Amino acid sequence: MVLKHKTRNKEYYKYFCNISTRWNDNDVRWHLNNAKYYEFFDTVINNMLFDLKSINLKCSKDIFVTAETGCKYFEEISFPDKILAGLKIDHIGNSSIKYDIGLFKNDNINISAQGFFVHVLINQDTNKPISIPVKLKDDLKSYA
Amino acid sequence: MVLKHKTRNKEYYKYFCNISTRWNDNDVRWHLNNAKYYEFFDTVINNMLFDLKSINLKCSKDIFVTAETGCKYFEEISFPDKILAGLKIDHIGNSSIKYDIGLFKNDNINISAQGFFVHVLINQDTNKPISIPVKLKDDLKSYA
Amino acid sequence: MVLKHKTRNKEYYKYFCNISTRWNDNDVRWHLNNAKYYEFFDTVINNMLFDLKSINLKCSKDIFVTAETGCKYFEEISFPDKILAGLKIDHIGNSSIKYDIGLFKNDNINISAQGFFVHVLINQDTNKPISIPVKLKDDLKSYA
Amino acid sequence: MVLKHKTRNKEYYKYFCNISTRWNDNDVRWHLNNAKYYEFFDTVINNMLFDLKSINLKCSKDIFVTAETGCKYFEEISFPDKILAGLKIDHIGNSSIKYDIGLFKNDNINISAQGFFVHVLINQDTNKPISIPVKLKDDLKSYA
Repeated sequence: MVLKHKTRNKEYYKYFCNISTRWNDNDVRWHLNNAKYYEFFDTVINNMLFDLKSINLKCSKDIFVTAETGCKYFEEISFPDKILAGLKIDHIGNSSIKYDIGLFKNDNINISAQGFFVHVLINQDTNKPISIPVKLKDDLKSYA
Repeated sequence: MVLKHKTRNKEYYKYFCNISTRWNDNDVRWHLNNAKYYEFFDTVINNMLFDLKSINLKCSKDIFVTAETGCKYFEEISFPDKILAGLKIDHIGNSSIKYDIGLFKNDNINISAQGFFVHVLINQDTNKPISIPVKLKDDLKSYA
Repeated sequence: MVLKHKTRNKEYYKYFCNISTRWNDNDVRWHLNNAKYYEFFDTVINNMLFDLKSINLKCSKDIFVTAETGCKYFEEISFPDKILAGLKIDHIGNSSIKYDIGLFKNDNINISAQGFFVHVLINQDTNKPISIPVKLKDDLKSYA
Repeated sequence: MVLKHKTRNKEYYKYFCNISTRWNDNDVRWHLNNAKYYEFFDTVINNMLFDLKSINLKCSKDIFVTAETGCKYFEEISFPDKILAGLKIDHIGNSSIKYDIGLFKNDNINISAQGFFVHVLINQDTNKPISIPVKLKDDLKSYA
């Protein structure tokens, strides 16, 4: 990974979870493989969604699917480093949500990586996007 | 995943590899988890690099690190689908390479997902970007 | 991995599938991480089960859960090696199946790793083991 | 996973680490995929080894390779459950170590899964097993 500016700190984010790294997160370069970062994005988002009362991730016929994702890698993270993942909702559309996620390595003040993640709510029967229910939208706004 | 325009077909790409899906690539939604797509991007790129005589991935002090990645998901892929990954080099800079990758599901003509991947060549001792050697650059151009 | 006797060849197995390795299957030692082998066991078993008409993996209320697994590692496999996974059913009990799996590296004649895998058929509503239906048992016997 | 006797509690183990689960640890059955358990075994063992002064995991020419692994699954674990991994050394041989690992789900008193893991110390130049140095052996004994 290549150093660039790291402009975001913990104040920027609204929801956090701790993530432990694993031995095989490291690839041959002794750093977390780039794909692993997306496991962390998924995890902080779904941890947040699990906490909400307005959607039942396990039983609902309406599910979030992933439309687009991206990540900028600012500095290396390696097992056994610890990670704090911070989440902020950038945009809530009719059926989509755009998340901004920052990963903080150990006790670092600034992010080591920054990702975005676009979820779209679809109905599993029709496989088509549907409007995000008002109650869920309201709940999500607390993280915007 | 949400349907969008799928504009690229196999003619667009310059290097290919076959990827078999695995039972646990599927997440709870019975589709490949979004992070798995990045494992495939890494795999097609490194398969191509392994084929080159102008760099030794295993022994060289100069290594590629990942600076930025992204993916658009056009349609669902599920185990036991098979994947053909196509690669094209979008840009070769002084020390960086930008790859464009398309994933074709089974015998599909158009891509199911499109990714990009930015590699930067660094020296492991200094941890700083270095110029891509001329011979390597020439080899890479055959995939541009 | 450490060399031991490798006693099994392709004649021993009854069902096969090809598995492509991925860049991040390698861990820091430049060999496939030990956990990846279990992804392959799962994959060859479920590929076989997907081929059977007597069970619908996706819709059935009766599902296979994993009770016990194990692996002996005879020699290193590394990306970009290719793998052929061979499967043989060791034992079919009232509600359980024990699989024997061998992994062949590239064009090797003998196995590089040998695993076993115990599946138990349970009903998702009761979470209790149930008898394997006769038709399914008959289908499975062709791999025993 | 299928309920069996769960005989071990936290007193049995000598070294512990906390492991956070991830969204895509769950497979289509909404439980952690069986291969993930081996990521946890690897992680608790290497966390312990990283803590030791008598071996340098990153720079040493002598490395541990995995000869055999196994796991019994007693009850389901699902993201977002939390895991406590406990480790005890069962046997220290001339060049091999056998670990016993128990995974505790959330605040459970008894293990949800029990694994074993055999490491062999080899020299990377010869690829042959070597005797475990006395100092390292002494350090390891504190976890036996």
